[in-house]
Amino acid sequence: MNPADARARFRDGLVTPTAGWCDGYTQANLISVPRDRAWDFLLFAQRNPKPCPVLDVLDAGAVAGPILDGDVRTDVPLYRVYVDGEQVAEPTDVREWWREDLVSFLIGCSFTFERALGAAGVPVRHVEQGVNVPMYRTSWRCRPAGDVSGPLVVSMRYVPESLVATAVATTARYPAVHGSPVHVGDPRELGVADLDAPDYGDAVASEPGDVPVFWACGVTPQAAVVESRPPLAIAHAPGHMLITDARDEDYLI
Amino acid sequence: MNPADARARFRDGLVTPTAGWCDGYTQANLISVPRDRAWDFLLFAQRNPKPCPVLDVLDAGAVAGPILDGDVRTDVPLYRVYVDGEQVAEPTDVREWWREDLVSFLIGCSFTFERALGAAGVPVRHVEQGVNVPMYRTSWRCRPAGDVSGPLVVSMRYVPESLVATAVATTARYPAVHGSPVHVGDPRELGVADLDAPDYGDAVASEPGDVPVFWACGVTPQAAVVESRPPLAIAHAPGHMLITDARDEDYLI
Repeated sequence: MNPADARARFRDGLVTPTAGWCDGYTQANLISVPRDRAWDFLLFAQRNPKPCPVLDVLDAGAVAGPILDGDVRTDVPLYRVYVDGEQVAEPTDVREWWREDLVSFLIGCSFTFERALGAAGVPVRHVEQGVNVPMYRTSWRCRPAGDVSGPLVVSMRYVPESLVATAVATTARYPAVHGSPVHVGDPRELGVADLDAPDYGDAVASEPGDVPVFWACGVTPQAAVVESRPPLAIAHAPGHMLITDARDEDYLI
Repeated sequence: MNPADARARFRDGLVTPTAGWCDGYTQANLISVPRDRAWDFLLFAQRNPKPCPVLDVLDAGAVAGPILDGDVRTDVPLYRVYVDGEQVAEPTDVREWWREDLVSFLIGCSFTFERALGAAGVPVRHVEQGVNVPMYRTSWRCRPAGDVSGPLVVSMRYVPESLVATAVATTARYPAVHGSPVHVGDPRELGVADLDAPDYGDAVASEPGDVPVFWACGVTPQAAVVESRPPLAIAHAPGHMLITDARDEDYLI
């Protein structure tokens, strides 16, 4: 399926996590904040490139851009709306919340490298199991910028021990979409107590010999929104991404 | 020589291009603009990552940061000061021009990959000849951001034809410091008429069999300053870089 068709389905109301959709096209995290808070958010992203690799920033009020021939207000399957840092709605369309001073950030997503993992022979368990990838707020702190601060959020994929090196090497070639893992192994190093109770997304079943591998996650700006309390922020619901017209190969080193 | 010692010499008044200085330490382009123009400049950099790879952005008024245990106002060998887009001074110290609302951008510099070129057996002619690298304003336009627009500026290195592929492959591994070339061969493709008349830096002599190879250059923001006319901008003089405490290896993919 091509991105325009997928976005049309989501615009028509289909709600689903997007892992595995539109093979070869780049999926993005969305975070939109008012123009007068955008400097701190852009600087936060620049200072934390592993969780917040910026693919594009739209002009204030713009709903499309060079890598999106669509509409950020309607083309994501499910949104989260935050007012003063509190989630107030989880709609499928945010036109009623839209303001002309909103600046939208499109941030790289690890779904981009999942096709490469598969091609390298690394199983992607959450796709196999038909669930959303599990994500966790960690005890690691991002480098703050102005009023914006927050914890690192990570996504987790179980990887067979014999394939951990392959998974690291494969994803390292995609620095624009989180790149190599931030941690391999014991989740307690990240302050994560229970892998079966993710903060976002779904728990995934492991297989014997699997090791948990953690990548920086583009939900990190949402955790920063909760902590930094801008008057309004619009984001995708975790795992329900904006499918862009960019190609995964564009971000391969 | 370590970066702190080099910066101390420049602070004491030594004026010299910095190519070849402090082997293994990352050199940076500097551009400082008032806070109310910084959003457009940061967005311009984000939208033009080949010429403007951001290594760090200091908080407004800050003169040091995580990769610079020094002072951006004194530690560059030679500066250029622009008022309303016109160059008004070329001092060795900018403390008299400094304002507390200035935001400083440290932008990657191709000097970083010159050691890697040398290690790969690619001669670096301007270092051999003891002159500054030649730089050219091209007819290629950067993607604008708000009020900030301008041409792409490139640096040029003559490379023996048999080593062009090596030079491309080597520098592609350093995307944070301009990465692979933007053009190999005929300078007229870039709108550059005469390689012996660079817009910045010095002309370099070629050897038989050399091909001109062009990399995006961190002087690009200065060309944007000339076109976009912020009330004040402070930059390094081309080739006279800020030597940071970061290591080149930190930017290797």
